[in-house]
Parts: sequence; structure tokens; C-alpha cells
Amino acid sequence: MKKLTKGQIKSLEKLFPKGDCLLSQEECTVFGGDSSGLFALPEAVARPNNEEELVELMRFAQKEQIAVYPRASASNTVGATVPILGGIVVSTTKLDKIIEIDENDFIARAESGVITGILQKEAEKKGLFYPPDPASRDISTIGGNIATCAGGMRAIKYGVTRDYVLGMRVVLAGGKILELGGRCHKDVVGFDLMRLFVGSAGNLGIFSELTVKLLAKPQETATVLVGFSHLEEALKASQKVLLQGITPRAMEFFDAQTIDALKKAGDDIFQNAQAALFIQIDATRENRENELMLIKKVLKNFSCLFIEEAQEEKEKYFWNVRSHISQAAFELAPNKLGMDIVVPRGKIAQAVNAFKLIAEKHSLNIMCFGHIGDGNIHVSVMYDKFNTAENEHAEEAKKEIFQHTLGLSGSISGEHGIGLQKLAFLDKQLGKNEREYMQAVKDLFDPLGILNAGKGW
Amino acid sequence: MKKLTKGQIKSLEKLFPKGDCLLSQEECTVFGGDSSGLFALPEAVARPNNEEELVELMRFAQKEQIAVYPRASASNTVGATVPILGGIVVSTTKLDKIIEIDENDFIARAESGVITGILQKEAEKKGLFYPPDPASRDISTIGGNIATCAGGMRAIKYGVTRDYVLGMRVVLAGGKILELGGRCHKDVVGFDLMRLFVGSAGNLGIFSELTVKLLAKPQETATVLVGFSHLEEALKASQKVLLQGITPRAMEFFDAQTIDALKKAGDDIFQNAQAALFIQIDATRENRENELMLIKKVLKNFSCLFIEEAQEEKEKYFWNVRSHISQAAFELAPNKLGMDIVVPRGKIAQAVNAFKLIAEKHSLNIMCFGHIGDGNIHVSVMYDKFNTAENEHAEEAKKEIFQHTLGLSGSISGEHGIGLQKLAFLDKQLGKNEREYMQAVKDLFDPLGILNAGKGW
Repeated sequence: MKKLTKGQIKSLEKLFPKGDCLLSQEECTVFGGDSSGLFALPEAVARPNNEEELVELMRFAQKEQIAVYPRASASNTVGATVPILGGIVVSTTKLDKIIEIDENDFIARAESGVITGILQKEAEKKGLFYPPDPASRDISTIGGNIATCAGGMRAIKYGVTRDYVLGMRVVLAGGKILELGGRCHKDVVGFDLMRLFVGSAGNLGIFSELTVKLLAKPQETATVLVGFSHLEEALKASQKVLLQGITPRAMEFFDAQTIDALKKAGDDIFQNAQAALFIQIDATRENRENELMLIKKVLKNFSCLFIEEAQEEKEKYFWNVRSHISQAAFELAPNKLGMDIVVPRGKIAQAVNAFKLIAEKHSLNIMCFGHIGDGNIHVSVMYDKFNTAENEHAEEAKKEIFQHTLGLSGSISGEHGIGLQKLAFLDKQLGKNEREYMQAVKDLFDPLGILNAGKGW
Repeated sequence: MKKLTKGQIKSLEKLFPKGDCLLSQEECTVFGGDSSGLFALPEAVARPNNEEELVELMRFAQKEQIAVYPRASASNTVGATVPILGGIVVSTTKLDKIIEIDENDFIARAESGVITGILQKEAEKKGLFYPPDPASRDISTIGGNIATCAGGMRAIKYGVTRDYVLGMRVVLAGGKILELGGRCHKDVVGFDLMRLFVGSAGNLGIFSELTVKLLAKPQETATVLVGFSHLEEALKASQKVLLQGITPRAMEFFDAQTIDALKKAGDDIFQNAQAALFIQIDATRENRENELMLIKKVLKNFSCLFIEEAQEEKEKYFWNVRSHISQAAFELAPNKLGMDIVVPRGKIAQAVNAFKLIAEKHSLNIMCFGHIGDGNIHVSVMYDKFNTAENEHAEEAKKEIFQHTLGLSGSISGEHGIGLQKLAFLDKQLGKNEREYMQAVKDLFDPLGILNAGKGW
């Protein structure tokens, strides 16, 4: 990609006056990184206020062959929004209008830059519920969530972001608009281009407007915390709970290292457990007690150290502890290589055990926790990057974790995507034919390769 | 497309000996129609026994530029499998092996020609549950279900076929194999080509093997039958039930014409109701009673003529009545134009009322019934095709129903797809840009247009 010329910068300023075109290094710096810690300085930042401005920008960028980096809240953890080849960052945060929440159609329609947590709260005011719940929900946007097919803790019961997208307006490189799907809960007319855009991480187009499906808000929740001496036992118990025909709203596991980190950070709800489960249910008031009873009955067949039930404030406290993990990790070491691998549901114990051996081999702390019902394990390799040997060991451990995951028919990412951080591993998972046709799809929608340029396509 | 030459037929016989290549008109006739009633005679039928043979066939067909029509059980109702330009019908019914049902990974892996009902029963033997449940489940195949993104009555709670596809092996025109997804419940690596193939109706490739997600089998079901004097009241009641935070396993509505047809066919469970709902729940034994109580409590706020509860044999009987609708329709007139339109969930009453006016205008019986929670209405225009005037009125009514549906931001198909029967209406729903990019996707995967040739792409 070429650098922006003075003439191009002038044109851009004409398209985006009134402070919506940022050019100073100081201002551009703010738009160069994301939660991955990776950084590249964009040459310009454009902040469209509406779809028309976004279209104009995409026409201009295509005509001038300038790289364009879509960016919402940049809570992405793998460098998916980092403008690695310079060019223009397109910030969607000004596209922040909720267009409608319709309690008859059970849908919400919003511009792509609306914060997911705000959309959820507005839906709740009408007794409705937008289930996908990535940890970043209070800062991340609905457009970003759909671009990454965000997961979250409720996926086991409610599915991921993909399962809630009903319609979208997407602006392509060159400025054409595709209007896909709509506000119907079913639709099988034509090829499903919409779901091709879900999870495409800004490589195929930029969303201007999105329509998502809503459910009725569940009446009540409750959470069971269970402590175990051994992770295998926790994993077996979780499988058995799933077989009861109750699908928990969330089911999270914590390994010994994760519990250790949380304890060090002052969150001690785990007593002397070496492994733990959070099992959260949501149901009507009457059914909550029944489901709790059934879960406890199942757990009695396993060697649990303790079983603790929580509702209301106590339940909130439990989930606050869960949300502290990312931060607490740094009690173990100053730096982290975070992964979000997936294995088939029955292979979690095998995977975690293998990761423990990798940790031993490299004398590193490796934390495993996450979405046990999805087989989606957050693996955090903790290390000190200023210790050269440890740094190398950490990178080596990451490689081995990915290799082992793929050996178990797993995937190197269940939620975060590839971005820049896993680019080197993309071809370990995807075969030659699959990669070739994915590239062809990229070329079809973005023939000059200006969208999120340098991200593997 | 050109007719098969003698040389090509010889080559085909070499590829498929032992009765797996059918050439006689008598035999080919069997493979020319589907449940739409449409028919075209194929020039040959090939029945691969494994993926390798399918690959060989696709290589041959591409090289020779012969049209290829994928066909499983042909329960499709819109002509999607009809070999409109001759060529070779590829029957997948010999790809009928269930490869594995894994109760630890909660997945099933099967060749594409496995009957869905058999897969469901095998899963149930292990306490597992494959939720998608198209009416054709006992004859249709998992490959056909995925090719059409089949729906069914449980979609309101469990989603459609798309939501259960985890992995696929698909053979492209020319014989390349794509292996997409796998056995993980989550995966966001690369572009989601897999879900592009879901619902692509044999236009992009032919599945050889599929992996689907399984759930635990729900413990108990129960059904409530509610009779109303007015359809509006039934629709309002259904919305209110949905808002309770209970999602029924199925929620079906019956309008006055549908009830009339069933009565004439001898199924009289509706007393003097002019509209009715079936509300089915599935839950643990303990929770079933609670949910039934809650549903009945909600219904008490509406003018219900009667509320009848059914479990076990009586429940089966109720659902048998539901399954008789298609046949009972012919009590009203000898011919049917069946549609499966979708409208936004809150627009069902408006849509059905409009269809009633269309019925009056054309002096026809029009039945409306179906999946109320999805906004997915089965509309059957009943007429006598040998009555020329009535024939014209029926076709006119169909057009008006589609027009009205699209006017309500609806879709002309929620389950059945486009096939040949709705081809003339495809461009009424899809815009120019959307159609152009869908065509480009078709050209990418099937550059010579041999797959299901003549179906709009």
C-alpha cells in the first residue's frame, strides 16, 4: 500500500470536515492499537456520522487504493483493528443510534457503533433480552461483536452472536451497499451472504446498520459454585449436568492456577479447591428451585469439596470474581499470552492436562478457564517478557498449545479470531483448498484488498 | 446445456458400474420429480457409494460440462431437485452411513444421505437430541436438510438446521473437496464458508459428510391446545406466552380454514373454535407442571373457548392431527398452491387478515397455519386446476400473497426455498446488488454453472 499523498489528505478533509478527519500524530495514535497491545500508526482517521459518509469514504479509498481499517471500540484482543499498513482508520463510534427496539417483532435495529451493553439495557426496559454477552459488552459495539462473531459465557444455552443476526446493511470497498436479511426470524431466500459477513473481522465490508433477534428476558437466575480436588472430576460433573436436559445459561470452569491467581488478587471464594465450576441457570421463579435441586442431585455423585448456591447480590459477587480473572492473571507474572482455543466438548480434560505438561516443560504458569460447555478454553501463558529465556519459552508454549489443540481436532480460536496475533498459525488450521476459496471470497468483495489490509487475505 | 453424447454415457457407465448408473427412461423417470409435483427427465442417474465416486463424477461432469442435479430424498416442495435441463441426477441416498454419534463431544457425524429421522433415533439411544425437525424427517436426509436449511416446528426454541451444523465435507464442481468446520461447538477461524453452503440448495456443491451438534434429550413434553373465536386473539395470546420467559418447544397456529379442512378429514379436536394454538413445552419432569401452570395463567387473560392439556398418547394424537394438515387441505379443493412465507413476528395477524381478503377477492379457500413464533406462515391456496378461471385466480392470489408479504418486510420463503416454483419472484425480494454478489459467489464455486443448472444462478 502507498502512503497517502497531500492531495488525498485534502480530499479526505473535504469529505470529513468538522473534526471527523483526524490527521495529527497525537490524535492518530489513539486509533492505532487495540486490546492486543499491538500498535501501528494510521495515516488518518475518518469518523463517519452516517451511512452516506461511510459510502463516500469507501468510494474514495477504493478509487485511490488506500488501505482502510474498520474500528469500533477496539476491544479486540488479537490486533484485528490495528492498521498494520497505515492508511485510514474508519471509526464507527459515531454510528451510535439505536433505531428501534420492537417488542412485537422481537428485534432491535441499530447503527453498527452502538455499545452492546446499552442495546441490552434498552431491550431489557421492554422485557426483552439480547443474549450474546462478550466480557467486553459495556465497551464493545454491536458491529464489532458481529464482525468478530463474539461469544461470551451464555453461548452454551443461547448460542453466539451469529445466531442473533437477522439483517444487516454493509458497505463494501468501493461504496456499494448490500442489504442482507431483514427483520424476519427465518429466511432462506438466496445464498446466505449475511452469515459470511458475520465473523469476517472487517475483511469483507463495514456494517452500517444491523438487525438482531431478541428473546423475552428470563425471569430469574441462580448460580452454583462447586469446588473439586481434581479438574477431571469437575469436567466429568459438568458433562453429567449437561446430560440432564437442563442447559445452564453459563457453565464456567477454573483450574488450580486460575484459582491461585484469584486468591492472590484477594478473591477467595474457592476454599481449598483445586478446580471449580460456576453453573448458572435462568428460569421462571418456580423452575429455578427445581433446576437447582436437580443440579445438586447430579453433583452429589461426584467428589465435590463444597457446593454453594448464590442468588441476587451474592450471585453478582460470584460473577464479579469471574470477571476479575484477566486482571488477576498478572498476580502470577507480568505478561500474558492469551489464547481462546476450542476442543471438542469431550476433550477438555485431555487438552488441559496436556497444557499442564507444556507448562511444566517450560517452567511457566499456564492458567486454563472458560466456557466448558462449548469446549472453549481460555489459556493464559504467564511470563516475564524482559526475561529473554522466559519470553522464548512462552512463545514456544503458545505454539505447542496450538499444535496440541489442532491435534485434538480443535480450533485455534473460538471467540477472538485471528487478527495479527495468530496469523502465523492460520495455515496450520485451514487447508490449502479452504484457504484458496476463502481468498477468492475476499477478492470478490474487496478486489483491491484495501479492507483491513495485511491481515492474511 | 448440451445433451449427453454416447461417449459420455460410456464414460459414465465406466465410473458407475453395478447398477449405480441408470440410463433407461423407466429408471430415470423415478429421479425426475420431487414433492413439488414438477418433473423433468434426467438423461442419466449416478449413485455414488462414497466420496471418491462423488469426486470422480464431479470431475467428469465439469470436464464435459454436463449439468449435475444433486438429489437426496426429493422431499423438497419447490422443484429444487428437478433436472430442468436434463443432465445427470446425482443421488446421494447410498451415502447412508452414520459414522459416529459421540456422547462426550455431543456430535453426530454422518454421510450426507442418512435419513434425519434415523439419525435422531440413534442419537436418542444415547440420551442425545438432534432438534431440527422438518415434517419430512422420516424420509428426508441430513444432507438435504442442510442444503435447504430445513426448519420445522421446534425452530422457535431450538433454531433451524443452520444452528446445528458444525462441520462438512463438500465436493465442488470439478471435484475439489472443501473440509469446513469440524467437531467443535465454536470456531471463528477464517471466513464462514460453511454457513454459505447451508441453504445453498445444491447450487454450490454436494455434501459428502456432515457433522452436527447434539443436545441432551429433554425429559418430558406436554402440549396445550387452546381454542379461540378470533385469530387476532390467538395471535395476541401467543405473543404474551412468549414474553413470559418460557420458550415453547413448538407453537403452532391454525386458522378457521385449516380447522375446517381437518374437521372434514375427520380430525375434530377443535370444538367450535375459529382459531387455535398448539403450545408444546419440553422440560424436566418437575418443571413441566410449572410451565403448564404459567401458560394457563397467561391464557386466562384472553378469551379462550377452551384449554386442553395433553401428555403421552393424547399429546401424540394432537400432533398427528397437526401432521394431517397437508393432506386434509384437499378436503377443500383438489389442488394446492403452497407457500411458506415469513413476516416479522408482530405482523402475523396483519398478514393473515390480508390473505383472507385476497381469498375473498378471488373466491378461493386459503388456509393459514404454521410456526407462529417464527412468523413463518404456511399459506395454502386451494383451487381446482381444471377450472381455468379458478386456476388463474389461484396464480393471481399467490402473486398477491408474495407482494403483500414483501410489503410487510417479509420473506417469500422461510423453509422451502426458491427452487423452480418461486424463481419468478426471486428478484422481487432480492435487490440488484445482492443478486449480483450472490451470482458472483455461484460463479466462484461453480464457474461453468453445471450444479443444479437452471435454478436462477
